Amino acid sequence: MSDNGELLQDIAHLGHVELMTPKPAESLWYFHDLLGMEVAHQEGQSVYLRGYGDYAATTLKLSEGDDAGVGCISWRAASEPALERRAAAIDATGLGIGWINGDFGHGRAYQFRDPDGHLMEIYYQEDRYEAPEHLRSNLKNLPMKYPKDGIGVRRTDHLAVCCADVAANRKFASDTLGLRLREQVVYENGTKEIGSWMSTSATHHELAYVTDIRGQHGRLHHFSLWVEDKSDVLRAADILSEHDIFIEAGPSKHNNSQAFYLYSYEPGGNRVEIYTSGFLVFAPDFKPVVWDEEARGTGVYWGGALPDSFLEYATPDVPADLPADRSDTGAEMAKDVPVFDPR
Amino acid sequence: MSDNGELLQDIAHLGHVELMTPKPAESLWYFHDLLGMEVAHQEGQSVYLRGYGDYAATTLKLSEGDDAGVGCISWRAASEPALERRAAAIDATGLGIGWINGDFGHGRAYQFRDPDGHLMEIYYQEDRYEAPEHLRSNLKNLPMKYPKDGIGVRRTDHLAVCCADVAANRKFASDTLGLRLREQVVYENGTKEIGSWMSTSATHHELAYVTDIRGQHGRLHHFSLWVEDKSDVLRAADILSEHDIFIEAGPSKHNNSQAFYLYSYEPGGNRVEIYTSGFLVFAPDFKPVVWDEEARGTGVYWGGALPDSFLEYATPDVPADLPADRSDTGAEMAKDVPVFDPR
Amino acid sequence: MSDNGELLQDIAHLGHVELMTPKPAESLWYFHDLLGMEVAHQEGQSVYLRGYGDYAATTLKLSEGDDAGVGCISWRAASEPALERRAAAIDATGLGIGWINGDFGHGRAYQFRDPDGHLMEIYYQEDRYEAPEHLRSNLKNLPMKYPKDGIGVRRTDHLAVCCADVAANRKFASDTLGLRLREQVVYENGTKEIGSWMSTSATHHELAYVTDIRGQHGRLHHFSLWVEDKSDVLRAADILSEHDIFIEAGPSKHNNSQAFYLYSYEPGGNRVEIYTSGFLVFAPDFKPVVWDEEARGTGVYWGGALPDSFLEYATPDVPADLPADRSDTGAEMAKDVPVFDPR
Amino acid sequence: MSDNGELLQDIAHLGHVELMTPKPAESLWYFHDLLGMEVAHQEGQSVYLRGYGDYAATTLKLSEGDDAGVGCISWRAASEPALERRAAAIDATGLGIGWINGDFGHGRAYQFRDPDGHLMEIYYQEDRYEAPEHLRSNLKNLPMKYPKDGIGVRRTDHLAVCCADVAANRKFASDTLGLRLREQVVYENGTKEIGSWMSTSATHHELAYVTDIRGQHGRLHHFSLWVEDKSDVLRAADILSEHDIFIEAGPSKHNNSQAFYLYSYEPGGNRVEIYTSGFLVFAPDFKPVVWDEEARGTGVYWGGALPDSFLEYATPDVPADLPADRSDTGAEMAKDVPVFDPR
Repeated sequence: MSDNGELLQDIAHLGHVELMTPKPAESLWYFHDLLGMEVAHQEGQSVYLRGYGDYAATTLKLSEGDDAGVGCISWRAASEPALERRAAAIDATGLGIGWINGDFGHGRAYQFRDPDGHLMEIYYQEDRYEAPEHLRSNLKNLPMKYPKDGIGVRRTDHLAVCCADVAANRKFASDTLGLRLREQVVYENGTKEIGSWMSTSATHHELAYVTDIRGQHGRLHHFSLWVEDKSDVLRAADILSEHDIFIEAGPSKHNNSQAFYLYSYEPGGNRVEIYTSGFLVFAPDFKPVVWDEEARGTGVYWGGALPDSFLEYATPDVPADLPADRSDTGAEMAKDVPVFDPR
Repeated sequence: MSDNGELLQDIAHLGHVELMTPKPAESLWYFHDLLGMEVAHQEGQSVYLRGYGDYAATTLKLSEGDDAGVGCISWRAASEPALERRAAAIDATGLGIGWINGDFGHGRAYQFRDPDGHLMEIYYQEDRYEAPEHLRSNLKNLPMKYPKDGIGVRRTDHLAVCCADVAANRKFASDTLGLRLREQVVYENGTKEIGSWMSTSATHHELAYVTDIRGQHGRLHHFSLWVEDKSDVLRAADILSEHDIFIEAGPSKHNNSQAFYLYSYEPGGNRVEIYTSGFLVFAPDFKPVVWDEEARGTGVYWGGALPDSFLEYATPDVPADLPADRSDTGAEMAKDVPVFDPR
Repeated sequence: MSDNGELLQDIAHLGHVELMTPKPAESLWYFHDLLGMEVAHQEGQSVYLRGYGDYAATTLKLSEGDDAGVGCISWRAASEPALERRAAAIDATGLGIGWINGDFGHGRAYQFRDPDGHLMEIYYQEDRYEAPEHLRSNLKNLPMKYPKDGIGVRRTDHLAVCCADVAANRKFASDTLGLRLREQVVYENGTKEIGSWMSTSATHHELAYVTDIRGQHGRLHHFSLWVEDKSDVLRAADILSEHDIFIEAGPSKHNNSQAFYLYSYEPGGNRVEIYTSGFLVFAPDFKPVVWDEEARGTGVYWGGALPDSFLEYATPDVPADLPADRSDTGAEMAKDVPVFDPR
Repeated sequence: MSDNGELLQDIAHLGHVELMTPKPAESLWYFHDLLGMEVAHQEGQSVYLRGYGDYAATTLKLSEGDDAGVGCISWRAASEPALERRAAAIDATGLGIGWINGDFGHGRAYQFRDPDGHLMEIYYQEDRYEAPEHLRSNLKNLPMKYPKDGIGVRRTDHLAVCCADVAANRKFASDTLGLRLREQVVYENGTKEIGSWMSTSATHHELAYVTDIRGQHGRLHHFSLWVEDKSDVLRAADILSEHDIFIEAGPSKHNNSQAFYLYSYEPGGNRVEIYTSGFLVFAPDFKPVVWDEEARGTGVYWGGALPDSFLEYATPDVPADLPADRSDTGAEMAKDVPVFDPR
């Protein structure tokens, strides 16, 4: 990303994420009625949502699909030249797909797959959200009114995806997107990379790669939305409990990231995190934090331990005994992808 | 900062700040016993403090002086080449002072004054904090134990300084340091710049310039420390109240920055803010928010209005009728400074 | 209330309160849409509301009227014999009005006026709230679902009424209702009782009498609703601000009661407090806390000072120069009331 | 407690609790340095502690002993006549021990054992806490300064004790102390009472009886201290984690009581709960909430499940295979106790 270790940040931040759901109406109820996200647009089999603090027109595209999972993961470039540079760099890896004309809310985008097969894109031109009169905030610097109804997630924070080879994907994200490594879980005397948390901005992480213990490809571990205060996470637990949403873990505090979190499954099956606190990274020479088996422990600093499902469940869900090369989604997607050589 | 609007971030972040105090023992009690900051080092007439979440060895240098006020404002460069580039750019303005060998916690630094006369410096080499055994956190990614005593400020956030000409100083900070403008208060149909809030990182602001209504130079409006949660600000109000510390304003919510804050005067006289929440800036094409008289109102979104002292008091304090060119601190400092031409 | 200083608690707690509003639709929007109260019943010109944690069918009766103000203040007796005892005691003062058959949610009640003319009643039989299926909580001990929409006030806490003679009304409430004094503001060397805060239960106060500085009768100072956490008060400030509700004071912390509060005016004009924290009174020999001019200060422990309107405004509102005996509401009501002799 | 169902409250509230510890210095460090309790007095092998909001001189007596466990559980009567009445009622059950002259902070007390053998006493005369100058609060209605150091527990809330026969002990507490039943866990089609939560005041519970699954007598399940806000529980988790205190469960939310809690083991071995929120009981005809196997679930509303140790561990700890009649503490104490016939 730079000639001499300097900070040339071509990717500005994680832009928007597409989630697939086999239960679009119920998923929309979850994101809109419970989480308090606003519907910015509707088109085809997709609804475009946003948090009240997101500056962009939309940050979550909810699309009907046969299975739950992640659709396209979009990154906003820092400028048009940065976009061109990143497209060229990805093209050189052989993982590029090509340019599309854009989608609701943003302009042309260069699409590609990461080595594990997750569909991604980069774009620069983005529509700033302009709130309709009744949603205009009394705060000039807030894109829309703070929602009085629902949990009130402020903005998209990050996502974690599963992959067969964490190291290969982490290296790809670092080399071609410029994501910087924040924390890692590495087992077996440093030989087995279990997870890597990465970011382009001061936020702790925008993308995490974690091992898919079922050996599948292209799956989603979780999508994470930011709330302003720990009290919002506690209130979310009350609201989700009252509406029969399965809370898998939390409210608790991670050791990795120090964040305060709650994981639930939206009705379509995707794991969604309500998230806050944690720490920002300012040091230009930040030294990634590496956790081994002992230090990692349960992954929880305090609060209930993460259940087995946290390691085992991802979307699309697959039977425990599915051969690693037979998943009909991620693996299918990955089939079209040229073999990536991380050297 | 770049040839073509791209993000080349030469200044990584606000590094450390020096505060002057005529009551060093009482000021130390305030920052250590009440705010819960750790003493990392002591040397000469200075104590070097840090918040538990700061990665650097020290972030606040508290120095004995005849008057309260700000000493040196230090910026960390993103790399050695970035440091050289910034030093050269400042030197070209005629406001440079020259290189020093560094101080406790950091290496050589290039010193200069902003157009208003505030002493600043840029450095790159910085000592990472290594906690002694008894202060080592059980969290691998936390530089030291979360303090059980006192308010528990996590880290330095920003400072606001007064100046005679906001526009000139804002332009200097933008042109030579690469600080990006976040918000502005501009009165009289856009002709009078009252305040400008700027940052190099995703945080809302690291430096604010506000009008010195007494026409002095080199003064400090406030120094701001971050706490993790709004509840910490409320708890701080209880603790400061019980220890007879004057709370000037808050706990309340700013309109500008959306932050939740509390202003008190440390015993030496400097205004200190306990601060959290607000918003991060991710957009590479962020459009600064401009507030006019009507939109600005009292500067408060909700909670008690800011008192007159908030506009009138700065450190060092001066009598209301002091001629604008006779302050014995900022003005003295400014006297040595070559005239700055912001064109 | 007892022969020998023992705790015979004939009044169990403040039951429900009737508020009058000249803007019933807008007031209902405030209490239902913004505060998150549930509509339990509608009848005539009244809507019967409740907080999600209230055990009774209804705790707030919102009635259309020419002016804002308080209608009937209802107390729940501890038993039928207790109800009879209190009715007899009040009847003996000459302030009794007589029995009514009850209202939605409760059985027969004995009505009376306090010396200042506020209409009150005592009842024992009360309908427990039975939530319809869609509002049934997943918590067996919660009367209804925690509301996902709006501020989510949990229950009625207390009300404060204005009166011409605080001491006389306080003595009446103590002698005939058994309310126990918690705190007092007394000025002019203990000769002028400005306000008295009283309760029958462990809560800090259920009724406060404060001086009507306009010399009127029967007016309401404020009605107060409990939220579970200080963070709910902060969130309320955001929601009320976004919906153009006038916030008169707070979020701040009272010195008296130690509570964390926010005062707004509902669209009908009544002052409504969002309230939490404070302290419970357990001591059977609790010694009331008395505040003089100096100790009372602004009535605020920290946070913005209470504005002048806090002393001057009550409902129904009257012009500042209205003769003390000409208010057309409280005074009218008070006219029918036999003169009360507090000896 | 009354002839006709009226509220004659002879016991005002849970007064103070004595905890035994084999590690007095470490236990004192836990309660004083970590929890922020004040040492009011020291005498013999005991230290007398208090929360900053407790009105009494002391509420926790920490005594050196061979084993952890609960010493004497003290109840404050509402008046001298109430004290006499309760002493007579207990004497009539044959469980009375007799009068003692009092202890630091309170006057004469009538001692007895509950059917399971827990030592209890009732007293009326109590010394109000008078803070020394340096601990005097700036709030007239707060007994001492809010502590800036440590977790800052406000006051004693309740305790839970284990017993062989919950129903018998619950009936005793109801009949002789006037404790009112709030909630119950009853298994096996209502035939097996697992736990009962009781109180004399508006607080949810002051005493809980839970089944001792090891069949011992006189043991302590946990002692619970109140903090003002949920954020204090989260902060407590950070502080306890940093100081290597074992957190057994929480921060999480109970279904029973709705409280937000955290359980840790103090160094002496006793389970201590940091506790807030929940609900107050105002209804004079409150209907106890009964939970069966299905409704009770894990006892957690949300947050991590309670671990097995929560059911198995109590103090003094005993081996899992100890015969039910051989514990050397509770059983020893219980040996002196006349057989109680709950009929």
